[in-house]
Amino acid sequence: MNHAALFGNIVRKRSFLCVGLDSELGKVPSFLLDKKDPVFEFNKRIIDATHKYTVAYKPNVAFYECHGSKGWGTLDATVRYIKENYPDIFVIADAKRGDIGNTSRMYAETFLENMPFDAVTVVPYMGEDSVAPFLSYDDKWAILLALTSNKGADDFQYHGGDGIKLFERVLTVSQKWGTINNMMYVVGATRAEMFKDIRRLVPDHFLLVPGIGAQGGSLEEVSKYAMNDKCGLLVNSSRGIIFADSTENFDKVAAEKAKELQVEMSKHLSEKDLI
Amino acid sequence: MNHAALFGNIVRKRSFLCVGLDSELGKVPSFLLDKKDPVFEFNKRIIDATHKYTVAYKPNVAFYECHGSKGWGTLDATVRYIKENYPDIFVIADAKRGDIGNTSRMYAETFLENMPFDAVTVVPYMGEDSVAPFLSYDDKWAILLALTSNKGADDFQYHGGDGIKLFERVLTVSQKWGTINNMMYVVGATRAEMFKDIRRLVPDHFLLVPGIGAQGGSLEEVSKYAMNDKCGLLVNSSRGIIFADSTENFDKVAAEKAKELQVEMSKHLSEKDLI
Repeated sequence: MNHAALFGNIVRKRSFLCVGLDSELGKVPSFLLDKKDPVFEFNKRIIDATHKYTVAYKPNVAFYECHGSKGWGTLDATVRYIKENYPDIFVIADAKRGDIGNTSRMYAETFLENMPFDAVTVVPYMGEDSVAPFLSYDDKWAILLALTSNKGADDFQYHGGDGIKLFERVLTVSQKWGTINNMMYVVGATRAEMFKDIRRLVPDHFLLVPGIGAQGGSLEEVSKYAMNDKCGLLVNSSRGIIFADSTENFDKVAAEKAKELQVEMSKHLSEKDLI
Repeated sequence: MNHAALFGNIVRKRSFLCVGLDSELGKVPSFLLDKKDPVFEFNKRIIDATHKYTVAYKPNVAFYECHGSKGWGTLDATVRYIKENYPDIFVIADAKRGDIGNTSRMYAETFLENMPFDAVTVVPYMGEDSVAPFLSYDDKWAILLALTSNKGADDFQYHGGDGIKLFERVLTVSQKWGTINNMMYVVGATRAEMFKDIRRLVPDHFLLVPGIGAQGGSLEEVSKYAMNDKCGLLVNSSRGIIFADSTENFDKVAAEKAKELQVEMSKHLSEKDLI
């Protein structure tokens, strides 16, 4: 999927919602636990219920690989289920990989060839050759960590020489490595006021914004400061949607929560005359 | 395994060698390819042949997870094989993980609880809360990326404010997070002259040094500049050992290559009066 196709889906669905499949077994509704693969069954129902309101899903790989071979099978089954049933939906492996070239090549093969993910999140600490293998596929993407919204972001991401913070350097240096058709950035949402400056550095790239939860309060600010003329945003919500309810109605409640965000997103897209 | 036990093994074996199990299926000798799990069979023979000369093994997780569920099973079988047969050997999951706290907790569980690894390599980009879960186990370790030896290291690791480069900031800031008993650093070996400065910042921690290959040329320099009074070094060699030969004698040749490095290491340990 390229930049234009992704924007096309956003316009058609009036949504830039990404649903995070942080599908922790311990939080899966108990009535699913006697299924052969409870996490896959959970994901399947969440996907069937929410796909109308979302343009992207983002399985968090840690929650699958902690179950070893079985979890890896669940991850594979989940991405295949999405691609077979809803091929227009963009699927991100939130894996935060990154290593020397020949090792990153293996990680890229894993997610972009062996599994049909559209994108992988990548940590840029090791520089260009650690990212390049993820950029070598047509219509596939690397999503580079730039600014995260956790407390530890202060430890390194805000430091740097010549008045340029590390995350700003990531945003500027890496633009030489890829294009708006194969590279996005993770930019944390708890600091919405910073999006104005960030958009000066990366006016055209898509940004993957984590951290919009059940609260949803900052979606307005993110849209205000970070939306560009091709939307340029995928805003993620995980637990606020998928674990909003733990009864047999969990999928219906998830759909309601996703729809609430879609409706709000629709309003912001409309305000910018994109739909 | 704590710092003292690891040093004890180094003294006993007169070696600070770590053998990297970058066991790429395409490079496994062809006569093993009809085995049920050729990569495991390869690893088992490498381990049986080289264990006398090494204090650590380091499977590179990318090379296993690219085979999906099966590869994950191979990784699990490999670490269990080492721990069951050679329990004194330190086993590192070279996974380069790191994410927000609850996700890093899952990664830590995966490698340090569900599999019997002693250590995981961790990318510090997201700061303290992304590393902390790996430091919450007795006798288990996080090995933080500080300085890598690939070309891309120049992109970010050498930049920083107040005269402090990013990798130096990682080395200093992170020392508050863990101890010499649960934290090491990856420090690239192609820049041996820098170890003098690095040892001023981290005099006591173990350093995991990648990049000593078949050439082996810099082992002398690394030992000269980076060895401390408890050795403080694990020096890795991967392809130079495990893929030194592709015949039915590959394990014997691997043992010879490992022994060559062990003999040289023994000399350096002796020069520092550690054995």
